[in-house]
Amino acid sequence: MARARIRDFGIAIGTMPVGARNAIGDVPGVRVGHATRIDGEACTGVSVVLPHADNLFRDKVIAAQHVFNGFGKSVGLVQVDELGTIETPIALSNTFAVGTCATALIRHAIAGNPDIGRTTGTVNPVVLECNDGYLNDIQAFPVQEQDVAQAIAAATADCGQGAVGAGAGMSAFGLKGGIGSASRVVTLDGKGFGLGVLVLANFGRRSDLRLDGRPAGAAALQTDHDTGSVIVVLATDIPLDARQLARVCRRAVVGLARAGSFLGHGSGDIVVGFTTAHRIRHDEKRDVVPLAVLNESRIDLPFRATAEAVEEAVLNAMVAAPATEGRGGRRESLFDQLTALGYSAKLR
Amino acid sequence: MARARIRDFGIAIGTMPVGARNAIGDVPGVRVGHATRIDGEACTGVSVVLPHADNLFRDKVIAAQHVFNGFGKSVGLVQVDELGTIETPIALSNTFAVGTCATALIRHAIAGNPDIGRTTGTVNPVVLECNDGYLNDIQAFPVQEQDVAQAIAAATADCGQGAVGAGAGMSAFGLKGGIGSASRVVTLDGKGFGLGVLVLANFGRRSDLRLDGRPAGAAALQTDHDTGSVIVVLATDIPLDARQLARVCRRAVVGLARAGSFLGHGSGDIVVGFTTAHRIRHDEKRDVVPLAVLNESRIDLPFRATAEAVEEAVLNAMVAAPATEGRGGRRESLFDQLTALGYSAKLR
Amino acid sequence: MARARIRDFGIAIGTMPVGARNAIGDVPGVRVGHATRIDGEACTGVSVVLPHADNLFRDKVIAAQHVFNGFGKSVGLVQVDELGTIETPIALSNTFAVGTCATALIRHAIAGNPDIGRTTGTVNPVVLECNDGYLNDIQAFPVQEQDVAQAIAAATADCGQGAVGAGAGMSAFGLKGGIGSASRVVTLDGKGFGLGVLVLANFGRRSDLRLDGRPAGAAALQTDHDTGSVIVVLATDIPLDARQLARVCRRAVVGLARAGSFLGHGSGDIVVGFTTAHRIRHDEKRDVVPLAVLNESRIDLPFRATAEAVEEAVLNAMVAAPATEGRGGRRESLFDQLTALGYSAKLR
Amino acid sequence: MARARIRDFGIAIGTMPVGARNAIGDVPGVRVGHATRIDGEACTGVSVVLPHADNLFRDKVIAAQHVFNGFGKSVGLVQVDELGTIETPIALSNTFAVGTCATALIRHAIAGNPDIGRTTGTVNPVVLECNDGYLNDIQAFPVQEQDVAQAIAAATADCGQGAVGAGAGMSAFGLKGGIGSASRVVTLDGKGFGLGVLVLANFGRRSDLRLDGRPAGAAALQTDHDTGSVIVVLATDIPLDARQLARVCRRAVVGLARAGSFLGHGSGDIVVGFTTAHRIRHDEKRDVVPLAVLNESRIDLPFRATAEAVEEAVLNAMVAAPATEGRGGRRESLFDQLTALGYSAKLR
Repeated sequence: MARARIRDFGIAIGTMPVGARNAIGDVPGVRVGHATRIDGEACTGVSVVLPHADNLFRDKVIAAQHVFNGFGKSVGLVQVDELGTIETPIALSNTFAVGTCATALIRHAIAGNPDIGRTTGTVNPVVLECNDGYLNDIQAFPVQEQDVAQAIAAATADCGQGAVGAGAGMSAFGLKGGIGSASRVVTLDGKGFGLGVLVLANFGRRSDLRLDGRPAGAAALQTDHDTGSVIVVLATDIPLDARQLARVCRRAVVGLARAGSFLGHGSGDIVVGFTTAHRIRHDEKRDVVPLAVLNESRIDLPFRATAEAVEEAVLNAMVAAPATEGRGGRRESLFDQLTALGYSAKLR
Repeated sequence: MARARIRDFGIAIGTMPVGARNAIGDVPGVRVGHATRIDGEACTGVSVVLPHADNLFRDKVIAAQHVFNGFGKSVGLVQVDELGTIETPIALSNTFAVGTCATALIRHAIAGNPDIGRTTGTVNPVVLECNDGYLNDIQAFPVQEQDVAQAIAAATADCGQGAVGAGAGMSAFGLKGGIGSASRVVTLDGKGFGLGVLVLANFGRRSDLRLDGRPAGAAALQTDHDTGSVIVVLATDIPLDARQLARVCRRAVVGLARAGSFLGHGSGDIVVGFTTAHRIRHDEKRDVVPLAVLNESRIDLPFRATAEAVEEAVLNAMVAAPATEGRGGRRESLFDQLTALGYSAKLR
Repeated sequence: MARARIRDFGIAIGTMPVGARNAIGDVPGVRVGHATRIDGEACTGVSVVLPHADNLFRDKVIAAQHVFNGFGKSVGLVQVDELGTIETPIALSNTFAVGTCATALIRHAIAGNPDIGRTTGTVNPVVLECNDGYLNDIQAFPVQEQDVAQAIAAATADCGQGAVGAGAGMSAFGLKGGIGSASRVVTLDGKGFGLGVLVLANFGRRSDLRLDGRPAGAAALQTDHDTGSVIVVLATDIPLDARQLARVCRRAVVGLARAGSFLGHGSGDIVVGFTTAHRIRHDEKRDVVPLAVLNESRIDLPFRATAEAVEEAVLNAMVAAPATEGRGGRRESLFDQLTALGYSAKLR
Repeated sequence: MARARIRDFGIAIGTMPVGARNAIGDVPGVRVGHATRIDGEACTGVSVVLPHADNLFRDKVIAAQHVFNGFGKSVGLVQVDELGTIETPIALSNTFAVGTCATALIRHAIAGNPDIGRTTGTVNPVVLECNDGYLNDIQAFPVQEQDVAQAIAAATADCGQGAVGAGAGMSAFGLKGGIGSASRVVTLDGKGFGLGVLVLANFGRRSDLRLDGRPAGAAALQTDHDTGSVIVVLATDIPLDARQLARVCRRAVVGLARAGSFLGHGSGDIVVGFTTAHRIRHDEKRDVVPLAVLNESRIDLPFRATAEAVEEAVLNAMVAAPATEGRGGRRESLFDQLTALGYSAKLR
């Protein structure tokens, strides 16, 4: 049952209020799209996160990143860190597809902005990845540029979860992983703001999994390595500058650790975050521009929201993904494991 | 009962083998000393960690640091990061004592090396701190230079825990905090190596405490802020270079998150680590020097050891500390809380 | 002649307009104070930079830092980097005085804010240093807490230069170094903003000195080591957030390199910058606060201003300092060297 | 005259001895290859640097990076920073070709190691870029995967310079830029080691150019923006660990600043370095491996070598490149400018 959520099993992470969708799309304007490639040995895909529906190159969003473990092949983080903005959709895919996705994002930006590389500067594509080589034949390079375009075209506020898009071939804690999401609501000056995360979960050892703190893993196996990675995309409409946003992104690691990861060597643990609170105009004419930022002494609210949402999103990624057979063998589903453990789901 | 350990209550963190002392002193040569200042409104002190018993300025150790949250007033980390060495004992104390401790460490180094600042370079004192202002009157500046000398003189392989030294006035998860320690054994090329940590625990909200994943906190209170900090000193004799050691230090955050922290804004979460595997000679004559390092693909072993040891050390710090009355009120002990919750300790 | 400026010799760095004082005090509200300790073997002191005349702890300024070479013993940078604010005067002194200066700054903050460490948080003192051990007996610890208080009390917009305050015992390029300053004017939205720097110049080899690009050093000597350090304090009233300010601080290295430094191993090259454009209130009640920042595409203006001002400030530090005899020998003055080279000063 | 070097004009940078080729190929085993694409509006190409002639994925080299200004779209730096190794050739090209180059490097690695992504991990391609859009129509995406293969096949120790490979369409200081190289010899323990750099020079304003400190630029023009970037690849056989290598890479900025750059906003200034002193085996069986590193107190030698070589390589890039007509206009050659200024070349 691919659409289950971990809350359907009575497992709720944390204490903060969740958004209407309990997903990244609770942040107004944020959309997610997927293109899935399951075909023969191919079991992979592309997912994209779009901060808003307008021209992102013209109206950039403030962004930040946190590389907890840099054993990863992402594209575009150096400039995100320097300039504190994102100007393309954020694409996620398998490790060997980053080049193709980067090129596709550049073409997408040029299509909307024919002046790029001619009368204005170039564009910085942001691509993140995990290695789905257990279930997918990455050497076949199944992802094409058109998959990125297709994922962008398909983007909606209702984020699909589980074995979709970039999540198609991912594994987590020795089970089937994939795309997961969750959100929290933060109240500031009497007004509600959203903070949502999308994770691409491809990390963790079977014996380490925790359900809200309770050990839920199987006995450790000889072959039980922590070789994957995990990507977190964080979205919010809380007014933050890039420094504050980087601090918020860092707290994603709390959720990963609580889900059971010790952030293993082979796991490229990377977080990219953005806020939709401002638009940073490419063609800004003013020399000095107004901004609103969070009173730093309130930042525990988005910190806690991030920790909670990431932990829940990892479990959502797993519980939403069905058992899958692939190139290297089979990955069972957390849904089935929970049922076997005596949990029962109250599905919506 | 100040000498209890969390394992006495049947709560064991993780799966790796522990060292003989299950404390930082399991790393050969590493010693810890304390000077405690409890007197009227003063409830504070100094703790020191010494990597070896020889002249540290002459025989430096490879070191690294990780600042997870830089809301802290440590001294010396900039140079540790640049040069990858430590050349003085590591001192821990309260926030306002860092200046005094730094000066004391400089004098200690000069006493053993009269050429410092005359015919050779200067020396980089390393001082870490937490704010014990709830139980201690930090405005009175009770720590004196002689406390550092006294702590160094008192250093032994048997690390005192609980409300000792710098831990005297600390609070953790709304209870009494302090100094805690734990260790793990890592086998490489058939030989056992030690990895131990010492924490100065002064962080966490009452409602967030977890005992090996199980919620153990009280209901959240209006006044339940996460305003403290936590310092982790990590010691090992595994051969690592500074880059590898920094990666190991980063995994301390896993233990902190699992103990219940979401790494709050006000919590200066800082890790300093060193390896005793090499001596970096101040007066090295050779231009090129041999070193041994870890095969990077084995680094999950110290990663996991760090995550486990830090989580356990935090609980040890708390369970070893008695209830304490101080300037701002009373901090109950985890020992008493556990007993009230029905846990019983099998004390050694 | 201690008050000469390098422009008096017809050597003008760069092309941007200079401020009225051509010093850091051109940034409205910024003041500098010195306390000099020349007595027997002591040849040292303290300098302070104050961002504004009000209560800095209550009204913090946005700040950033850049550690180009971390072979230094500064205090407070970790928190500046994390929170992007400064809440005490910035103190500069010799390497072994950092502890004393830190304690003095804490006491100064408590004097103005008795709630520190009691009913509000602690305070982060910022102290920077160079090793003046060639001319000064640093083992005697001549700097006292009262020197910091005295320097603060003496602060004015007219920054003394040369062998004053922390500059008393410093050496640069084998000659007498010390405190130097310079400023530039940046026009934004039709309005003039100031950007000023203060350097504590204690770096460089005799054979490497350059005067606006022209080699001005003597032949290399056997003993010609680059063992010092250089500190740059940058002030501006341009609206910048902490990320932008960090980018501006980084460009200080351009001025150092052009003055002749190759940023040697032993030279702790550290920059701390702040903008007076905003006040970050300690007791802010609003959850979201307005800020103004620079249109990033205009940032080349403060970049170039920084590069120019730093190069000029280094030369000002040297040309303003008289030849000095000290513990380790004599340091000649650049003023005399220039005269010997045929330059003539048109003093004001 | 495309093969001139700046030394042919009597302009020699610095004081250290140069290698036999005064180019990156002086480091034993290091080779450079180019594929140039000049065709209609296309004026671009690919350059590759190969650390050694064996299987790089199996025998990785220790590496480091320094991002001085992250306004760039490089690929692979995150992992270089984390693991301190490089496992593919380093490719340089135009901004929009990074995706294609990354994919090509992955395919190249798989061709030599069919286990990649199947029975062993994935591979981290390293690609660096500058924007050659003034002379080249980057929107046409002229670079193909085969160009990377062709550049690798063409690699030799004799590094072509000027308007070749990735340098074909680059501009520097308002003149024609491109690929440049230089080297220095460092003596350690009585033995000579090489340190060489290759730059892709596409930065600087016309009015800012300096020839060994002497202003050589034209008057500033309205359109005189610093919009390019510069990439530095540094190679050495000095035994260094990744931390030391990162420190060495940082000194590249000294050479850039002295050539006239103030490291402008739009200039992605990025350095990647490696040492051939060790081989880090992908299939290492030992848990602990020996390494040799530099006595840190000797590190001023590679620091100075880097500063000198980078400054010279930038001038070599320019003087070796002929005047070129392209999409956006014409770029004059430094060779012609020098001749016009009265310099005369003594060509070899």
